[in-house]
Amino acid sequence: MTNGDPPSPLRRGLRTDRLEALSDGVFAIAITLLVLAIAVPTKAGNHLLRSVAHLWPSYLAYAVSFSTIGASWLGHNVITEYLDRADAVFVRLNLLLLLLIAFLPFPTRLFADYIGENQPERVAATIYGVSLLLASTLLWVLWRYAVRAGLVRPDLADEEVQLLTQRLTPGLGGYVILIVVGLFVPIVAVVGYLAIALYYVIPFRRFGRIHLFRPRRRNQRPS
Amino acid sequence: MTNGDPPSPLRRGLRTDRLEALSDGVFAIAITLLVLAIAVPTKAGNHLLRSVAHLWPSYLAYAVSFSTIGASWLGHNVITEYLDRADAVFVRLNLLLLLLIAFLPFPTRLFADYIGENQPERVAATIYGVSLLLASTLLWVLWRYAVRAGLVRPDLADEEVQLLTQRLTPGLGGYVILIVVGLFVPIVAVVGYLAIALYYVIPFRRFGRIHLFRPRRRNQRPS
Amino acid sequence: MTNGDPPSPLRRGLRTDRLEALSDGVFAIAITLLVLAIAVPTKAGNHLLRSVAHLWPSYLAYAVSFSTIGASWLGHNVITEYLDRADAVFVRLNLLLLLLIAFLPFPTRLFADYIGENQPERVAATIYGVSLLLASTLLWVLWRYAVRAGLVRPDLADEEVQLLTQRLTPGLGGYVILIVVGLFVPIVAVVGYLAIALYYVIPFRRFGRIHLFRPRRRNQRPS
Amino acid sequence: MTNGDPPSPLRRGLRTDRLEALSDGVFAIAITLLVLAIAVPTKAGNHLLRSVAHLWPSYLAYAVSFSTIGASWLGHNVITEYLDRADAVFVRLNLLLLLLIAFLPFPTRLFADYIGENQPERVAATIYGVSLLLASTLLWVLWRYAVRAGLVRPDLADEEVQLLTQRLTPGLGGYVILIVVGLFVPIVAVVGYLAIALYYVIPFRRFGRIHLFRPRRRNQRPS
Repeated sequence: MTNGDPPSPLRRGLRTDRLEALSDGVFAIAITLLVLAIAVPTKAGNHLLRSVAHLWPSYLAYAVSFSTIGASWLGHNVITEYLDRADAVFVRLNLLLLLLIAFLPFPTRLFADYIGENQPERVAATIYGVSLLLASTLLWVLWRYAVRAGLVRPDLADEEVQLLTQRLTPGLGGYVILIVVGLFVPIVAVVGYLAIALYYVIPFRRFGRIHLFRPRRRNQRPS
Repeated sequence: MTNGDPPSPLRRGLRTDRLEALSDGVFAIAITLLVLAIAVPTKAGNHLLRSVAHLWPSYLAYAVSFSTIGASWLGHNVITEYLDRADAVFVRLNLLLLLLIAFLPFPTRLFADYIGENQPERVAATIYGVSLLLASTLLWVLWRYAVRAGLVRPDLADEEVQLLTQRLTPGLGGYVILIVVGLFVPIVAVVGYLAIALYYVIPFRRFGRIHLFRPRRRNQRPS
Repeated sequence: MTNGDPPSPLRRGLRTDRLEALSDGVFAIAITLLVLAIAVPTKAGNHLLRSVAHLWPSYLAYAVSFSTIGASWLGHNVITEYLDRADAVFVRLNLLLLLLIAFLPFPTRLFADYIGENQPERVAATIYGVSLLLASTLLWVLWRYAVRAGLVRPDLADEEVQLLTQRLTPGLGGYVILIVVGLFVPIVAVVGYLAIALYYVIPFRRFGRIHLFRPRRRNQRPS
Repeated sequence: MTNGDPPSPLRRGLRTDRLEALSDGVFAIAITLLVLAIAVPTKAGNHLLRSVAHLWPSYLAYAVSFSTIGASWLGHNVITEYLDRADAVFVRLNLLLLLLIAFLPFPTRLFADYIGENQPERVAATIYGVSLLLASTLLWVLWRYAVRAGLVRPDLADEEVQLLTQRLTPGLGGYVILIVVGLFVPIVAVVGYLAIALYYVIPFRRFGRIHLFRPRRRNQRPS
């Protein structure tokens, strides 16, 4: 909708620009609210350094959730980039994805607060993993729906569609495995969640090499 | 304002793009702040799973408020989509709508905290319902004003205007009925609020079928 | 920068679109954070209705700060609307304005917490008033600077510039008077702050009548 | 991507507009969340004025962090302004920068809470300084990467690139020196952090004089 041609009066669907604006807002706020999960130690006195060091689960949870939301945003970005138009189902699925993204600060705080306590940390890690799995699943559903409903750009090659689908799929299996692992060794599961998020971030680089690094003619006027 | 044609120097009114930017910001923040209403249980120890399960009123309130704000955003989206231009009264009504949307996290927390206590939960559910009713009413007022003041796009068919008006109206009656119901069975009222929000979300799909699914010529260049 | 013409390579100044994006973000967040100042009563039991009613200073403070930030946003909107370009001083003044806007939730909470206590409410009302005065003054400075530095659109009539300047000026005097009044009758001062904010909102309507209601040719293509 | 020409189908990389939207969102939210670090005094009674005055470390920390995030936003703004396109590494580095920016409210609260206590204030000031150093370093890395990877606009003169590089470099040394100073006199270090932030803000003005103040032909149509 930001192109030079006026929007066709016939095409009065929900504009993707406001969809993106709300989505970017929720992603940005959820990712920034995570810092509130790191509780400033009170009355630490001369032991402040030790108190701050003891907060490592909070930093780990911050890194995991930040990476996951960041990776989801990257994925969301690629999806809307390939989107030709949105329809009403897509908009609703997108709201559901945002509901899950906006929820993530809660299991993040839960995990940060209860790691180190034997029984509760398993519960917290499992709730955390299920939340991450749900958010990632919905991102995958959003993409699948966009492809099936024919919302993606017509000039997009099938192999590109398949490539993105393949990238989004294995992470889901990873979460399922790690949730089971987390029942026994919670900390390993959480480090695994971080690894998945970084994996999500990195493939987009390789994925990007195909398109992003394509040399652009320098004699074009800058856009 | 993102089209190819420069803004007419004669038309220096408040641009709808910043109106939408502020609105999207407030919607996104209010919807994301809701998660702060879910209090992480402290010192739950080995009963963490039970403690987390006991938070179900918080999750319900999160779902209700998220759906309601999401539905309001969808409605706001359709309104601004159909908007030809904004005038000063519209901008003020919009600010009033945002005031009510931004207020919703308060009754949400109130309900989440007091459900289960016999007398207070009626008070909390009523305050919650009145807040939702006010926000929805203002969305309806915003649309009615836009139509009456001739702010909607001239190429918009009367039946489309009436269709949106009809969609926005019955929800208001629903809230009034549920507020009365909530005086006796609060939990039923709140589930009803969720149903209204989902009803608001779903009709836009059917509504959308008319316009959103209209096949777009594939030989157009992608926008 | 959202027009059809490419940005001139010679004109590489800070784009006003990101200036507006950051500003809209801060306005939206500050206005939405205000709701956190309304503390949910704890253990109110059967007295919940009374407890919620006793929170009226919080609602008043919410209304005052929301209106003031809303009015500042409207003013900021008109200023950037009339802006031809930004320079580095303008950007810094804008950051200073945002610093004051983002600070407002603090005096808002201070007032909401201390009204009703004889001595402290005078202190809280004064701090509140000074904060509002500073924010409004900076908005006025921003506009004056834009005019003096020749940043406003060249096609803007002098009378329009003067009209906006006149609108922004009397509010400052109002704040000074009310701050003094607040030393004796704090609640009157705060109601006065609300009146000023509404006054700021309303004149823009009258101001707007000149431009906003100017009939737009209907045979133009919708933008 | 907001120009009049349609995006080339060949160039499907991550659009810089959503990169900027997420970044502006995170900057705006982090900068606005800082106010939550200023704790409203409870039960101050008739000593409210003194209590509020005693919060001066909070105000100082608010000013330092606000200025630093504001300066980072200005720098980020200049970088993306000079950006011809983004690649996947740039996007990831940008996410890392946002992670550090979003983290700043934590050391800000830490410093505000512990200044005045002999031993802890050194710890808090050091953690604060290291956080600021990391954020600033990443901004510098982001710029260096953009230059090395050839992402900057081809029409950008080498001297302009060098000028910005030079501006971004000395601040890093300043932080290192001040972190060491802070081990002995924490308050001096923090005032120094404020000075660096203001220095970052001010040079962009001088830097800007070259481009921002370049007179624009008045007979151009307003953009």
